[in-house]
Amino acid sequence: MAEKFTKNAVGRMIPEKINGKPVIPFQGVHKYITDGKRYAPPLSSSANFPEDGNKQVKDLKTALKNAGIKDGMTISTHHHFRNGDLIANQIFQAASEMGMKDLVWFPSASFPCHEPIIDFLKDGTIHHIEGSMNGPLGRFASQGHMRGAGVLRSHGGRYQAVQDGEVVIDIAVIAAPTADSFGNANGLTGESACGLLGFALADSQYAHKVIVVTDNLVPFPCIPWQIQGNYVDYVVEVDQIGIPDRIISGTTRITRSPDRLFIAELTAKFCDEVGIIKDGFSFQAGAGGTSLAIGNYFGEIMRKKGIKARFARGGSNQYLVDMLEEGLIDYILDGQTFDLAGVRSMRENPHHVNTSPFTSYNYHGKGNFAGIVDVVILGATEVDVNYNANVVTHSDGYLLHGIGGWQNCLFSKTVILPIPLFRDRIPIIRDEVTTICGPGELIDVIVTERGIAINPRRKDLLEKTANSKLPIMTIEELKAEGERICGVPEPVKLGERVIAAINWVDGTVIDVVYQVIE
Amino acid sequence: MAEKFTKNAVGRMIPEKINGKPVIPFQGVHKYITDGKRYAPPLSSSANFPEDGNKQVKDLKTALKNAGIKDGMTISTHHHFRNGDLIANQIFQAASEMGMKDLVWFPSASFPCHEPIIDFLKDGTIHHIEGSMNGPLGRFASQGHMRGAGVLRSHGGRYQAVQDGEVVIDIAVIAAPTADSFGNANGLTGESACGLLGFALADSQYAHKVIVVTDNLVPFPCIPWQIQGNYVDYVVEVDQIGIPDRIISGTTRITRSPDRLFIAELTAKFCDEVGIIKDGFSFQAGAGGTSLAIGNYFGEIMRKKGIKARFARGGSNQYLVDMLEEGLIDYILDGQTFDLAGVRSMRENPHHVNTSPFTSYNYHGKGNFAGIVDVVILGATEVDVNYNANVVTHSDGYLLHGIGGWQNCLFSKTVILPIPLFRDRIPIIRDEVTTICGPGELIDVIVTERGIAINPRRKDLLEKTANSKLPIMTIEELKAEGERICGVPEPVKLGERVIAAINWVDGTVIDVVYQVIE
Repeated sequence: MAEKFTKNAVGRMIPEKINGKPVIPFQGVHKYITDGKRYAPPLSSSANFPEDGNKQVKDLKTALKNAGIKDGMTISTHHHFRNGDLIANQIFQAASEMGMKDLVWFPSASFPCHEPIIDFLKDGTIHHIEGSMNGPLGRFASQGHMRGAGVLRSHGGRYQAVQDGEVVIDIAVIAAPTADSFGNANGLTGESACGLLGFALADSQYAHKVIVVTDNLVPFPCIPWQIQGNYVDYVVEVDQIGIPDRIISGTTRITRSPDRLFIAELTAKFCDEVGIIKDGFSFQAGAGGTSLAIGNYFGEIMRKKGIKARFARGGSNQYLVDMLEEGLIDYILDGQTFDLAGVRSMRENPHHVNTSPFTSYNYHGKGNFAGIVDVVILGATEVDVNYNANVVTHSDGYLLHGIGGWQNCLFSKTVILPIPLFRDRIPIIRDEVTTICGPGELIDVIVTERGIAINPRRKDLLEKTANSKLPIMTIEELKAEGERICGVPEPVKLGERVIAAINWVDGTVIDVVYQVIE
Repeated sequence: MAEKFTKNAVGRMIPEKINGKPVIPFQGVHKYITDGKRYAPPLSSSANFPEDGNKQVKDLKTALKNAGIKDGMTISTHHHFRNGDLIANQIFQAASEMGMKDLVWFPSASFPCHEPIIDFLKDGTIHHIEGSMNGPLGRFASQGHMRGAGVLRSHGGRYQAVQDGEVVIDIAVIAAPTADSFGNANGLTGESACGLLGFALADSQYAHKVIVVTDNLVPFPCIPWQIQGNYVDYVVEVDQIGIPDRIISGTTRITRSPDRLFIAELTAKFCDEVGIIKDGFSFQAGAGGTSLAIGNYFGEIMRKKGIKARFARGGSNQYLVDMLEEGLIDYILDGQTFDLAGVRSMRENPHHVNTSPFTSYNYHGKGNFAGIVDVVILGATEVDVNYNANVVTHSDGYLLHGIGGWQNCLFSKTVILPIPLFRDRIPIIRDEVTTICGPGELIDVIVTERGIAINPRRKDLLEKTANSKLPIMTIEELKAEGERICGVPEPVKLGERVIAAINWVDGTVIDVVYQVIE
């Protein structure tokens, strides 16, 4: 059966259906306006819940059974425990033991620790994964071994899809570092503290059944209730929900690579020169080594100027917390804590505020925080001469990363991608990226170790840097420089089978990922 | 056109329709199980909101116009400013100037300061009020002057009705003591600080258009965001949203009436004797003079026993805050702050937690907090020999009070009504109450200055007090005692017109209120 494909607004061919469901091809930024309604889950009645509020059941299997698990259901998890999660594998182990088939796993992200899920994809317990597939699961899908197609969404897009009913979650399992027997839960305390539980918010609000699993059950009330027990059906106490040192690594450090440090310095200088770093400004960097270095340079500039930032969006870590505590930042608006300093600060400091994909990123809300941020620093695996960028596949075609909040952050006032000109002798700037995750019109500046390219749409930035000593170049010049050093890369031969869709923030499909021919 | 009436589960005759809409008669506690779905408001798109997040418009009239106000719409407000609210009257003044007709006002409660609304009911701007009508508005409705029928709901019932789509709010106006231009708002700071904004939560989540009005606009982000800007369409800055000393009176004091103090002491002794006051227990009293005295006695008993309460549900005030700060209570779970001590404590103390009708009371959630509370102390205007109670009408038939959280609190483990045996020489205990707001099966104990009656359903309490020195009596004995002193009250003659419906927590109708013939 030949699939029908349509060309979307960034020139990519999009199939009519993904996993049997019709899709809308990407129509351009701010072009597709939904006329839908918010998803309406079945109402509950307190008559069906314990009068004393105690929803505890003996184990995960009982909770899944009580929740009415059956073949074909969609089961969601969240990724606050990153590579230390112990619950997702247990869910599908239990489901497999119960003889379930064709489940859809809808994680907010998956990690190498979830490699055992491959067994459940192979034995038919799971049909496919909707969500980012970092590492081994991505490789497995890229090799064409997953029955359905993966659907990758940004953090905001995942909230949007759940809110809009594009994904109906039958059972959400929320692993919580602290919870009470009513289901109130948070990530601030306990052995598995991860800071916050924002990625599970949509799941709690819209899933038909919600199970909270905790290894730190406290007497009601669990304060604060980042997850509200009023959305929760069952509570399960277990010995351990995550491996602390894989949840919070505490090891992210500012890069020592001279090239990366140079890129970071260039980025900060650029921001300063075009007037972004001013009193009351806001920024979002990230937790990678280069991003941390940029944050550090921002701090130096702020100290020198005697100014402060109104807020920084996190991923938080020690460096950002230090800036908050030094008074360089009024508020951290945090979507994910990356180390124990972040967890402690969020627990103790009312200026370190937990956010969610709803507040920060949901495109089908009445605006979101992304557009309020003055400058955002993001990464990319590839960028093309039209400033389109890729974050999910490598140039060899393998799907190895999720989108995270990357697409959502593109709505910031200025979007800067500090990237090396090449990685493993493969140039990063290409004629066409393997997979378009973000349209070039939203990407303003590329900073590399050899020069800075400004999107021609940003005439204001071009004017401000017209007489600059910064190495301003065209993107074509940057591309040529990369190819001069590494050679022109060979095109990669990919298969015809679509193994994943890349959704845009509005639920349309911006690109698809093809099977890799090995 | 003769209305058809059906007898409901507490024997009251309920019309088929209220305001032209079909209603479901009360079927008994936990008997009516909804099979509906959560209300699904139209989705928004960030494409239709300012990219920089600034939603400010110049005035309330502009906001109403932009929100598409038109005849017949439902407009909601909240009552955190109590008798100091300056916004509701302005909304309908503006609507009247714009020539609007037949609006429905859906306040979370109305107060004597809203007497000017009578003019808008008279001139046709407003068709009817759905919500409590304290004082003059209630009198106006009781006299048969309002075109439609009032629909009174508990705080939880109001959340339920909005969540379930029984009331569709076209425009919600949320007056906020502090807000940013994105619409994030809280009640903790500013000249009009009222503590929290929980009564406006449902409105923010489900109204088609949401307007935030503030007299304290701060730079983004307004922290904390008790109301999330992602639900907000427009922000309006005005000079003043409320009159501080009518918002927060600061004048509630423990009763000095010897009778009331005696009732309070009896209540506390009863609770102690039946074993309610134990380490880790929970209670909800209230802010009236008798309730405060009971809280005080609770405190004395706790000190003596060296125990503490796990939580107290508020309405908070200085007395409850003192107990929190003394360490007698782990947490205050607060639905409404009644004085500046409450506001300060909520602002500064993470153990003083703001709650909402969703967390505390919504019956169509997965349980709520009410059933977790060990003992709740409530008032009543009348109680009957079957323990049914009335809180909205007086014995002369006038509708003068709202339900508040009263119905919702009836789900507490033990419900105690400490009430005087008579008021103005009218006995409180009757053969039948004028209006049934709560079914007797949920009301456990009546404490009066002459004796304590225990609902025969509570065999456990009867057993525990079998040899007590407390003045345990039957409710018939209490009634006889009241009538011995005041005489048997004359029945009141009421008209045939239904001027208001009293909804139960599940959306069914438990009773109706009739016009008073003067």
